Amino acid sequence: MTADGDCINPELTTLSRTPLVAGVPLNLLNTEVMSNDRFYVRNHFPIPKVDAANWSLPVSGEVDTPLNISYQDLKELPRHEVLALLECAGNSRAGIQPPIEGLLWDHGGVGTAGWAGVSLCTVLERAGLRSTAKEVLIEGCDEGEERGASGKLNYAMSLPMEKALHPDTLLAYEMNGEPLPGEHGFPLRAVVPGWFGMTSVKWIKSIQVLDHAFVGYHQTSYYVFVPEGATGDRPNERVTSLRVKSLISHPVRGQYVTAGRVTIEGMAWSGNGPIDKVEISTDDGKSWQEAQISPSPSPYAWQPWKYTWEANSPGNYLVRSRATDLKGDTQPVQTLWNFRGFANNAIHVVPVIVQPMP
Amino acid sequence: MTADGDCINPELTTLSRTPLVAGVPLNLLNTEVMSNDRFYVRNHFPIPKVDAANWSLPVSGEVDTPLNISYQDLKELPRHEVLALLECAGNSRAGIQPPIEGLLWDHGGVGTAGWAGVSLCTVLERAGLRSTAKEVLIEGCDEGEERGASGKLNYAMSLPMEKALHPDTLLAYEMNGEPLPGEHGFPLRAVVPGWFGMTSVKWIKSIQVLDHAFVGYHQTSYYVFVPEGATGDRPNERVTSLRVKSLISHPVRGQYVTAGRVTIEGMAWSGNGPIDKVEISTDDGKSWQEAQISPSPSPYAWQPWKYTWEANSPGNYLVRSRATDLKGDTQPVQTLWNFRGFANNAIHVVPVIVQPMP
Repeated sequence: MTADGDCINPELTTLSRTPLVAGVPLNLLNTEVMSNDRFYVRNHFPIPKVDAANWSLPVSGEVDTPLNISYQDLKELPRHEVLALLECAGNSRAGIQPPIEGLLWDHGGVGTAGWAGVSLCTVLERAGLRSTAKEVLIEGCDEGEERGASGKLNYAMSLPMEKALHPDTLLAYEMNGEPLPGEHGFPLRAVVPGWFGMTSVKWIKSIQVLDHAFVGYHQTSYYVFVPEGATGDRPNERVTSLRVKSLISHPVRGQYVTAGRVTIEGMAWSGNGPIDKVEISTDDGKSWQEAQISPSPSPYAWQPWKYTWEANSPGNYLVRSRATDLKGDTQPVQTLWNFRGFANNAIHVVPVIVQPMP
Repeated sequence: MTADGDCINPELTTLSRTPLVAGVPLNLLNTEVMSNDRFYVRNHFPIPKVDAANWSLPVSGEVDTPLNISYQDLKELPRHEVLALLECAGNSRAGIQPPIEGLLWDHGGVGTAGWAGVSLCTVLERAGLRSTAKEVLIEGCDEGEERGASGKLNYAMSLPMEKALHPDTLLAYEMNGEPLPGEHGFPLRAVVPGWFGMTSVKWIKSIQVLDHAFVGYHQTSYYVFVPEGATGDRPNERVTSLRVKSLISHPVRGQYVTAGRVTIEGMAWSGNGPIDKVEISTDDGKSWQEAQISPSPSPYAWQPWKYTWEANSPGNYLVRSRATDLKGDTQPVQTLWNFRGFANNAIHVVPVIVQPMP
């Protein structure tokens, strides 16, 4: 069998070949929209090969009219477009201390793309939601075994009604103007703007409206915050909303730059809409200066920022970036530890060497 | 050109192919002597191909009789054997926060091997040290460019006389009973027991006795402790002695184990001779229990240790190991931060999942 990772863009850093997990080197996080072949991949099982002609979307459960929508029919429903960032819940977990469980993402599990498809609420309205509807369960075609779970399972996640009915919660069939690539969920995936990527289920197999809270391995055992000393006798909080965060794409860790003006740049985003400010420190966090931020093209996209550093003294430096959103949330020095290192939005720190001018 | 890493044992984790840098997965750190093909590799430049028949060792500088010793003649000098651990100064740097410069070693840059050769002091005595002798400079055949240095340079390190004259400081031509493998320094390398690996210069090209302190890129700019906020206006302390340290080889990070008796095992060592105790904590560092330690076969080798954990309650755990040497030095929770993350001997912490018995 060929591994999923065999034809992945070699610019990406492959953390796992099957299931395919691959991140973007930080220096490539420098564009408002990430091209499809540079968009990070976080799969849980081998990529299912789905033939759109033989595929359809069943919508069942707490609805008046169960549906079964073909790929063609989906495309004829009202089109909705969203420019949205997705970030893996485990992004930036590599540096967490004490060490955590999970693939050691550095910071490359994030990207913004233009998504097009049908609002999930459009489909739910056509099916007719019953008043008993409590959650919407989205199941993927991808299946396999997971350590800590018994037998085969499909990847599946549910959304509370408020999130499911938001017009920007999408059933997407296009990514940056092209049909979804196989590794990104062809023929149809969810895109849940403002939440970590784990609910943006790929290769959708079915949608079920539930009258109860879903219990499933990925949702209630895996993508949860397990605190230190957890005894497992009560449920752990689910990972949902993105946190305010910034990353430095230039310079990169360990980069040598020449004394003089050095451009520090990167990206910032939040699960709560636009960024208010990005501050830069080059003196071990003693003082902070504001960077220039590009306006937000969408409430769900990242925003490029830039700062000119007068790096006149050669030496070893730590460059830090700290974003604050309009709600007032700001990046912490350290994230609250959890067993799988989810949702790490600690201030990004990059060691840089300033060399004398030749 | 073929990359150095092309024929490396695939069991190792390759951090760089040229220069070749490869570490051992932690689960393989479970043997008193590491086999040659599982011994970590930390090179700085491409591997020089040296023909022993055309090679000889010049010994010059502050000596009465400069020498030039052939490979055959070296083997006829009194043979000395040392079982010694080498550890890369950058080992375990990956988890350090704030992030550091350098290749992101996890913990696999360490190994113990049996080395045989000639004591450096034997050679120095034959040459006749002058009273002006202050340091012994060992230069390697490996050469290339380094960021932060200008032009081509050879790898080179000096030893103070006390270390150079210690009978266990070796010019080694054998590793575990075989001629040195190419990636480990054929035909001749230094082995400096008790110090980090960076002074155990490989592919020795020459030995010079100096009447002054050596200044060289690797010794005085690279393998030094650069503290946070260093301004570069005074020299930084050199990295030398190994620190007391333990690593857990089983279970590994993120391992699922079944409730009941779980064997926790690993290795411990110190630059200061034997280990006094290794303590294990499975309750977030609240309490510590002593592990059983195997006796030390050499003052320079690691010592295997083992502890039986009664893991009766399923859940998520952090397992910690903490070694203390006979001098009383013990592992800290966190190492003093330095720019390249050298000499990290923080307590090893491994997240483990205990599953119910089936």
